[in-house]
Amino acid sequence: MAKGSAAKYVVGMDMGGTKILAGVVDESGKILGSYKRATKAYAGPDEVIDRMAKTVEDAVKRAGVSMSQIEAVGCGAPGPLDPDKGIIWHTPNLPGWNNVPLADMLEDRLGVPVFIENDVNLGTLGECALGAAKGAQDVVGIFPGTGIGGGLVLDGRLRQGFRKNAAELGHMVIMADGPYCGCGKRGCAESVASRTAIERDIRAGLAAGRKSMIADMIKGERGERITSGALAQAYQAGDPLVTEIISRAQYNLGLLTSAIINLVDPEVIVFGGGLVEAMGDEFLEPIRPVAYQYSLNQRDIEDLKIVPAKLGDNAALLGAAVYARDRLARK
Amino acid sequence: MAKGSAAKYVVGMDMGGTKILAGVVDESGKILGSYKRATKAYAGPDEVIDRMAKTVEDAVKRAGVSMSQIEAVGCGAPGPLDPDKGIIWHTPNLPGWNNVPLADMLEDRLGVPVFIENDVNLGTLGECALGAAKGAQDVVGIFPGTGIGGGLVLDGRLRQGFRKNAAELGHMVIMADGPYCGCGKRGCAESVASRTAIERDIRAGLAAGRKSMIADMIKGERGERITSGALAQAYQAGDPLVTEIISRAQYNLGLLTSAIINLVDPEVIVFGGGLVEAMGDEFLEPIRPVAYQYSLNQRDIEDLKIVPAKLGDNAALLGAAVYARDRLARK
Repeated sequence: MAKGSAAKYVVGMDMGGTKILAGVVDESGKILGSYKRATKAYAGPDEVIDRMAKTVEDAVKRAGVSMSQIEAVGCGAPGPLDPDKGIIWHTPNLPGWNNVPLADMLEDRLGVPVFIENDVNLGTLGECALGAAKGAQDVVGIFPGTGIGGGLVLDGRLRQGFRKNAAELGHMVIMADGPYCGCGKRGCAESVASRTAIERDIRAGLAAGRKSMIADMIKGERGERITSGALAQAYQAGDPLVTEIISRAQYNLGLLTSAIINLVDPEVIVFGGGLVEAMGDEFLEPIRPVAYQYSLNQRDIEDLKIVPAKLGDNAALLGAAVYARDRLARK
Repeated sequence: MAKGSAAKYVVGMDMGGTKILAGVVDESGKILGSYKRATKAYAGPDEVIDRMAKTVEDAVKRAGVSMSQIEAVGCGAPGPLDPDKGIIWHTPNLPGWNNVPLADMLEDRLGVPVFIENDVNLGTLGECALGAAKGAQDVVGIFPGTGIGGGLVLDGRLRQGFRKNAAELGHMVIMADGPYCGCGKRGCAESVASRTAIERDIRAGLAAGRKSMIADMIKGERGERITSGALAQAYQAGDPLVTEIISRAQYNLGLLTSAIINLVDPEVIVFGGGLVEAMGDEFLEPIRPVAYQYSLNQRDIEDLKIVPAKLGDNAALLGAAVYARDRLARK
């Protein structure tokens, strides 16, 4: 489609605790122009929403179009939130956000309809519409990182759930009475397969006298946090402690994946997030056989694709654009 | 609707390893007449399918209508099967059934369209349309008995899955590396929360010298199988061993339920099957708090109903009737 004055576009936005990313997206899913700025979450909702509006306007400028050509804005945000009412209930990553009517506030400011959704849900929708699961109708996104986020697209539509809280798959229990999870419960997938769980086990190993190259790598890092990049490096170098602990996390991710397969029987499972970005398909190789083996139905099991995400940082932005178009069409 | 010659009905059928049950169902979900006969599974597919056809004809006679008034037959069968092609792939309960084109064979015999689906899926659809979850759009059925069957209705439609194998929720792992399951894997919900798992643990307790009233109750029973009825009696009498083991199974069912909630976020969860039929709501009482506590989203959590099934032996028959109407409408 030409950028003539008749052409219509949507803006996809991804607002996180650290940065705001917005882009003008055409009907084919191409990003015509984008803009990124810091969230400055400490400044509170009014300031952050002002920064979001400016980021949309800057992206529109970059794309060489005008606001009058923008039909809608889709926005991914950390949850929990109410996508129908456009309200952020609260979010651990953004201090002071309690029942903030984000969609209405942005609409007032921008003069176009604004639709919000959970950022991981939109990342999955983006991968489904334009990325690693393009063409599939039944897609699960699994994003192991600090936690384990998830998204569910069934019959080509985002599954939001009765209480708008579907796809919290990091909190599916896969190890009854296992380690404590950040959520206060025990044995959630997050507690045995996230980067945080891997870091906890490596620290316990080091404290118990195990040797690892990671001990030197984290010295001097801020808070000595063990990043996905450091894990990838030690894993690829064959460090015994790191390999052992990551292998265990991969096994647990395989069990989680099989539980999801046994319940919803999807077509494609897309793995994204920090660990996958750092390690690529190598991270998925040991997950696949466990996921397949633990699926009850072995018929055509290898037709079920388990693939790394493709869209990287743009997944939620693109998913937000797809979502905005879909909401607009059903208005 | 009157039973005049213009009136149209469907037949719902439930074919299991032991019995065949068929009933003529009107548009309101009322069973106008039904018939039941033994499956005689040992006789092989041809004989069983002949018995199924006769059972449909007998139900039609009982209902006081004629075959010309039957628009379609819906049939629940033990899986795995292909509902689109109407083929039973194989089924452990029916010896000799391998790739049997059940729908076509019944169609040839009865002269009306025949649609088949997994019996537990149809039981869930029945409870959703006409039973304990009437009016709800997002329903999960959990049926703990010899195994743990399941069904999934999302947005008012049966979720079949990409490989037609959704809702095998008895094989979701909730206890990594737990006990061996009948499927050959470890830690499936079935391996720690089915009647079979309860029986295994009671026998282990008895073998280890624990006392229980159940020891006397099973003497003389065929194969000394511990039935759901016997379990209910000992549980209600407060037998310590039985109470301890059933409580553990209920806790595990709570974890399974929470995993399902965290993934698909349904409106109603219906529990059916042998244990629930024997114990009623008393069996569910200890499951609810665990299911709620392990759900990540606590907002409106008690709006999520966890209820016992209502339709009893007619659930799959009624679900089959609803399913046949739905398939007919979308033909």
